[in-house]
Amino acid sequence: MIIDIINKKRLGKELSYKEIAYFFNAYLEGEIKDYQMSSLLMAICINGMTDEEVYALTKVFIDSGDILDFSSFCDVSVDKHSTGGIGDKTTLIIAPIVAACGVTVVKMSGRGLGYTGGTIDKLESIPGFRIDLTDEEIIKQVKDIGVVITGQTKNLAPMDKAIYALRDVTGTVSSIPLIASSIMSKKIASGADKILIDIKVGNGALLRTKKDAQKLSQLMKRIGEIYNREVRTIISDMNTPLGYNIGNSLEVLEAMEILQGKEKNNNLVDLCLELASEMVSMGKNISINDAYMEVVEVIKNGSAYNKFLELVKHQKGKIDKLSLAPYRKLMKSKHKGTIKGINALELGKLSVSIGAGRINKEDKIDYGVGIKLSKLVGEKVKKGEVLGVIYVNDRIKMPNTDDIFDIE
Amino acid sequence: MIIDIINKKRLGKELSYKEIAYFFNAYLEGEIKDYQMSSLLMAICINGMTDEEVYALTKVFIDSGDILDFSSFCDVSVDKHSTGGIGDKTTLIIAPIVAACGVTVVKMSGRGLGYTGGTIDKLESIPGFRIDLTDEEIIKQVKDIGVVITGQTKNLAPMDKAIYALRDVTGTVSSIPLIASSIMSKKIASGADKILIDIKVGNGALLRTKKDAQKLSQLMKRIGEIYNREVRTIISDMNTPLGYNIGNSLEVLEAMEILQGKEKNNNLVDLCLELASEMVSMGKNISINDAYMEVVEVIKNGSAYNKFLELVKHQKGKIDKLSLAPYRKLMKSKHKGTIKGINALELGKLSVSIGAGRINKEDKIDYGVGIKLSKLVGEKVKKGEVLGVIYVNDRIKMPNTDDIFDIE
Repeated sequence: MIIDIINKKRLGKELSYKEIAYFFNAYLEGEIKDYQMSSLLMAICINGMTDEEVYALTKVFIDSGDILDFSSFCDVSVDKHSTGGIGDKTTLIIAPIVAACGVTVVKMSGRGLGYTGGTIDKLESIPGFRIDLTDEEIIKQVKDIGVVITGQTKNLAPMDKAIYALRDVTGTVSSIPLIASSIMSKKIASGADKILIDIKVGNGALLRTKKDAQKLSQLMKRIGEIYNREVRTIISDMNTPLGYNIGNSLEVLEAMEILQGKEKNNNLVDLCLELASEMVSMGKNISINDAYMEVVEVIKNGSAYNKFLELVKHQKGKIDKLSLAPYRKLMKSKHKGTIKGINALELGKLSVSIGAGRINKEDKIDYGVGIKLSKLVGEKVKKGEVLGVIYVNDRIKMPNTDDIFDIE
Repeated sequence: MIIDIINKKRLGKELSYKEIAYFFNAYLEGEIKDYQMSSLLMAICINGMTDEEVYALTKVFIDSGDILDFSSFCDVSVDKHSTGGIGDKTTLIIAPIVAACGVTVVKMSGRGLGYTGGTIDKLESIPGFRIDLTDEEIIKQVKDIGVVITGQTKNLAPMDKAIYALRDVTGTVSSIPLIASSIMSKKIASGADKILIDIKVGNGALLRTKKDAQKLSQLMKRIGEIYNREVRTIISDMNTPLGYNIGNSLEVLEAMEILQGKEKNNNLVDLCLELASEMVSMGKNISINDAYMEVVEVIKNGSAYNKFLELVKHQKGKIDKLSLAPYRKLMKSKHKGTIKGINALELGKLSVSIGAGRINKEDKIDYGVGIKLSKLVGEKVKKGEVLGVIYVNDRIKMPNTDDIFDIE
């Protein structure tokens, strides 16, 4: 039976709901081994899955745990998910903005792995910040301030958690059907009525082509329809890092600056305004334009930033204790010219190498380290001008940064 | 590095010798886990391997253990391998024939797994038969009687052994590159100068199409060339079982009858004459026709059968102690007609279900059980006529045999 199912997918045939449910549940129960699951996952990666198979797998993931329901204490809750990118601190910025506009945001976030950071790690760089709220605490905080950002609760799609951990170490991450069912099962189980997905495309993202991003977008919308959840997607560039800062404390600081309206017109600000407008539009059933006006207003009048401070305070974070690593290394331009590109993937690798991210699950993160760019794509630089600052906790040798900046 | 290699093969790219050697050696050393190896194996199954990759993998398998060398005590040694089939007892028949013709045969055989039996299990059904000869015992016996059939020595391509065990439980058996490197590494390491491969095609075999068999044949010949070994192949049918008997003791009995010249003109006899003629032709550098004359002669004059008895005696087997299971179930024809087909796969499943083979590696074999066909394909039968006899050790319920015989 086990081998028959693997063989079927190896030959590119469609698995039934019954076969998928049996295989994945038996895995969680230990009857099917890691090496059998990874073999099936690789066959899925290469041979794909039909829509029916993806719906079946999503259902099996959802059914493996609890399904949360916030309908008793708010009309509509809106969730947002990013497929992950370098310098992606959008959640820290848009959750307070959207809540300040009066839309409830209950966001369960994850940790970073590989070159992309995770919202939970970023929040933990704020000393004292609690990311392990209980269901009761979540409900109380939503009632009090309308916004929560917390770690995924233990029993939410636990099968997805197990499968994701295996995919991560077996080269089976890049699969549109597996990505779709993983994201959608978590979003549906965590109780959001409306879901916005930010699909990243580029060398610093899971997906490398716009075509793949469109496929993923369509598939997630179809899954959403089945569960009666409105799903909107934004496809955004991840060849270039988002904003100036990469690294946990540094990203929190940048988020605070944007919430205070200090930064305007860079790729991060633009994306945050777009995502926040979509969420407010969904949450209030208003046009994008009207939502955009509200978003701009809550930044301007300070209520978005205040909501952020409220959020941090409610989750016991001490924002004044946020600290950066003590040593600095300057990245300088080797010649005069215009910055044509800043390679997100290479910058991600550098950030992991200095301790801002994890290679293995058990690795500890150094919250204060990171990279603060001084220039963004399109800016002119002189020879010897500072392109960015590397924050480190030891006196390290200057890493090679030739692959990061493309200056012509 | 580990994930990069898996991803490369997932995307269908060619791995270098260095990458293959690293990955497989690190697996044997425990650095790479079962679930990572099975993921790579599945990617190989689906995306294939270039010839260069297959040569690399074969070399890595060979280099993982000892390489035997018989050149000091015989001019030429000829080996034969079958990719496995239902009722395939050809080794028991042709090894004594070829040795009786004066060609040295040192045959290392395996155990059965799944629906196909293994020569070593068949020989062990002879009480006392030793299949664990030491290198010294092998050399002495070759000098004394020119023929040995023994189990694979422990340190012969040990990596292939580990990989095969994993393939078996992860649905990654049916891969031409993996089959080719597995067989050829064992054959080359076990010291044979000339190698005959019997490639089975059909529903009871690993390969289902003649095209796949031809691909495997060409690939194995190319590997042989690199190692300066003459490789010949025969592609033979495995939609129909070989001969009348399936089951360990029963197959030994059938082999003895053929060696005594009691059976003529069935698919098993024909294949044995063909295989033996090829081996004698290779071993003596003579034409197939001349070899065929010698083969027929050693059966007729009794020297082939005597060589079999000598072999059994030298390896401490007591052929007079061979026994069959005590209970019989008769398979009868439900209507009158001609036997159009006998389904090898279904017969294999039946034989495993009554204990003649293993489903899991740790299963114990019941040597005396099996199936003895009374009729072969092409024969006419009346309604109620006996098609075959099932030998069992318990009074079992008559199994459903409708899928086995196709009578029109």
